[in-house]
Amino acid sequence: MSMDFSPFPNTLEMVQWLSKFGQTKNDGVTRLLYTPSWLEAQEALKTFMEKAGFQPYYDSVGNLFGRVEGKDKTAPIILTGSHVDTVVDGGKFDGAYGVIASLIAVQRLFKKYGEPKHTMEVVSLCEEEGSRFPISYWGSRNITGEYTLDDAAAVRDEDGVSLLEAMKISGFSPDHYKPTSRTDIGCFVEIHIEQGRILEKAAKSIGLVSHIVGQKRFTITVQGESNHAGTTPMHDRKDALSIAAGLIAHITEKAGKADSGLRATVGSITASPNVSNVIAGKTDFSLDVRHHDTANLEQFCDELFRYFKDIAGKSGTMINVRQWFQADSVKMDENLLNIARLTASEKGISHHELTSGAGHDSQVFGSFCPTALLFVPSVDGISHSPLEQTLNKDLEKGVELLTAFLYKLAYQGGEI
Amino acid sequence: MSMDFSPFPNTLEMVQWLSKFGQTKNDGVTRLLYTPSWLEAQEALKTFMEKAGFQPYYDSVGNLFGRVEGKDKTAPIILTGSHVDTVVDGGKFDGAYGVIASLIAVQRLFKKYGEPKHTMEVVSLCEEEGSRFPISYWGSRNITGEYTLDDAAAVRDEDGVSLLEAMKISGFSPDHYKPTSRTDIGCFVEIHIEQGRILEKAAKSIGLVSHIVGQKRFTITVQGESNHAGTTPMHDRKDALSIAAGLIAHITEKAGKADSGLRATVGSITASPNVSNVIAGKTDFSLDVRHHDTANLEQFCDELFRYFKDIAGKSGTMINVRQWFQADSVKMDENLLNIARLTASEKGISHHELTSGAGHDSQVFGSFCPTALLFVPSVDGISHSPLEQTLNKDLEKGVELLTAFLYKLAYQGGEI
Repeated sequence: MSMDFSPFPNTLEMVQWLSKFGQTKNDGVTRLLYTPSWLEAQEALKTFMEKAGFQPYYDSVGNLFGRVEGKDKTAPIILTGSHVDTVVDGGKFDGAYGVIASLIAVQRLFKKYGEPKHTMEVVSLCEEEGSRFPISYWGSRNITGEYTLDDAAAVRDEDGVSLLEAMKISGFSPDHYKPTSRTDIGCFVEIHIEQGRILEKAAKSIGLVSHIVGQKRFTITVQGESNHAGTTPMHDRKDALSIAAGLIAHITEKAGKADSGLRATVGSITASPNVSNVIAGKTDFSLDVRHHDTANLEQFCDELFRYFKDIAGKSGTMINVRQWFQADSVKMDENLLNIARLTASEKGISHHELTSGAGHDSQVFGSFCPTALLFVPSVDGISHSPLEQTLNKDLEKGVELLTAFLYKLAYQGGEI
Repeated sequence: MSMDFSPFPNTLEMVQWLSKFGQTKNDGVTRLLYTPSWLEAQEALKTFMEKAGFQPYYDSVGNLFGRVEGKDKTAPIILTGSHVDTVVDGGKFDGAYGVIASLIAVQRLFKKYGEPKHTMEVVSLCEEEGSRFPISYWGSRNITGEYTLDDAAAVRDEDGVSLLEAMKISGFSPDHYKPTSRTDIGCFVEIHIEQGRILEKAAKSIGLVSHIVGQKRFTITVQGESNHAGTTPMHDRKDALSIAAGLIAHITEKAGKADSGLRATVGSITASPNVSNVIAGKTDFSLDVRHHDTANLEQFCDELFRYFKDIAGKSGTMINVRQWFQADSVKMDENLLNIARLTASEKGISHHELTSGAGHDSQVFGSFCPTALLFVPSVDGISHSPLEQTLNKDLEKGVELLTAFLYKLAYQGGEI
């Protein structure tokens, strides 16, 4: 086995190389699941893996693995990586950095130390964002066995193309599907951009994630009464948009006073008929609430919805709350967190412990096997945007820590 | 001259007859300027006028007049009527009732009293709503000379058809346009549905309008910062939608405490990117403010925008206010209002004085010649909807008062 292939002098250059697959006119990236740009990126990574001496293979849904055999064939596999898909016109780093950092780290380890004790696999997960199909974590949830082909039967993209058709077109025909769930994985390690400003503000190189937050998402509908803006006195209105505005202002105020781990966001609103001179009869808005502590999250929502009920009664309107998404809070593995903390200290890499406010594949793996999630800082906290950026020095610090961390797991490896 | 044509036993039946032109599947009416349904309605009214013995004629933009010559050729003309166009899927009564009531009233007067002193003209104004083209009061403002063909040159409907092309298609070719402004009109009398609930709640048959409110319309833009809903702490956000919601809640609260003549409405809102898990970077909303007293209207807006400026400073966002519409408050003629009040009292018709919160052709005529605007009640205040309704007894009371009022003006006629 040869692992001398090193075409990229640094991590940033490799991130830029991968970003050419699906590059947008804004210098962003659009790689939606099973589209040509997505397939080209996976194929390019596969070629890189081959040349670098990994044994690459796809599973039935298109997760790409690069395997390095370990000495101990009975030892559980160390899996490391992230996802290759992006949101529409997203950044170069989200997901891609984790795949690349894992490839570089494993390549460096093998070059320096030869065959590991544990078999290692670098994974480029086929889908995390859920940007094309209304299904998230399609890649990781196939590995954990939470999803099978049956879950995809009714799922279609905005153009009406089913997930199964899209698989077929990209060469992963459902006709050849074999169960993708794994029983040989010992742990999962993911490095990812923070997508927030906490590390930047704290001036730390690495984030050690203790929890990934739980999330609930709702659609709130205020049903009032549409009426003429000029002829309806103020006291005689059931103005759905005005009442919704009051609720949103209340959410923001309440969230501002809550425990600092809480996030509540109203990102989307639709008024009807949405005409300047007509009082809105109906207004829908979204509510996204997150906290790493489930009890705290639920208490916030309960109190909020009691307040909504009170306002509905006082205003004579109907306020309906419909929950359409839930992800439970997941604690990252304490043992792995300790090893990562120790590794960072030994390397003199500044680090900060934090919760992840965003969902990640590590959230899926976290309930399946011991999982560690590491962050590198995001410039200005920007992500899901062509402006997404992580400084090269931070990219390199991340690779350095990941390499040393994986060394402990795969070469010393008694702890897992 | 014969004026015996009475095909309709009552006013409601004639309203229903006219509503067949442009009838929608919801039993509403869509008659947009210069469309076939609009032209058919005008032509049907012209035929009605001919059979009833009026002298019908169109002006160059399609306002339809039905003339009854008076004895005194030097006496100013008594003009009465309303508009024939509707909003999309609007009601049967808005505008149409005023045209029909005027036709019936003049017909009855001639039948009973013969030739009037003043020449009378019933007008079916070609356009009031501004529903097809972004231009309002095209009909009445051509009569007052505020608009000429030049004002229509750049105006297009949603399909890109210009006003001039639409005129040509409907038979009113701009090539044959002659100035439509009039110098022979002594006064304008319009009867219209209230489009509000004030008369219904006061249990009165007729509204005597003292003022038509002034209006200002604005677009407010809050420019914040789009960010990740999960990774951005509450205190570190510039959430454009949340800030807009606070402003809207403030508008409603302030308007609720203001003078009862004030109306402030936010009917339309657009957040960007409008995605549930992304903090909105930008939010636009409309603001429609009305009052019959200009100073009061302006003070309200000034105070509001000072508050906006304050919030922009505190939140570190940009809040931009753009005014795109203004209509000055117009006082109806006091002399005509006195005559209308006297007439209602003589007839024992219950009446109530009020301001009009909606704009009407009377607002255009009010700055041009002595103008009177009468209202009949709207069931539940509903208008611009297929559910728009006025009870037959109220329609008839309106015609009764209008007939007696026009008698005083056209037959006794010293006061104007």
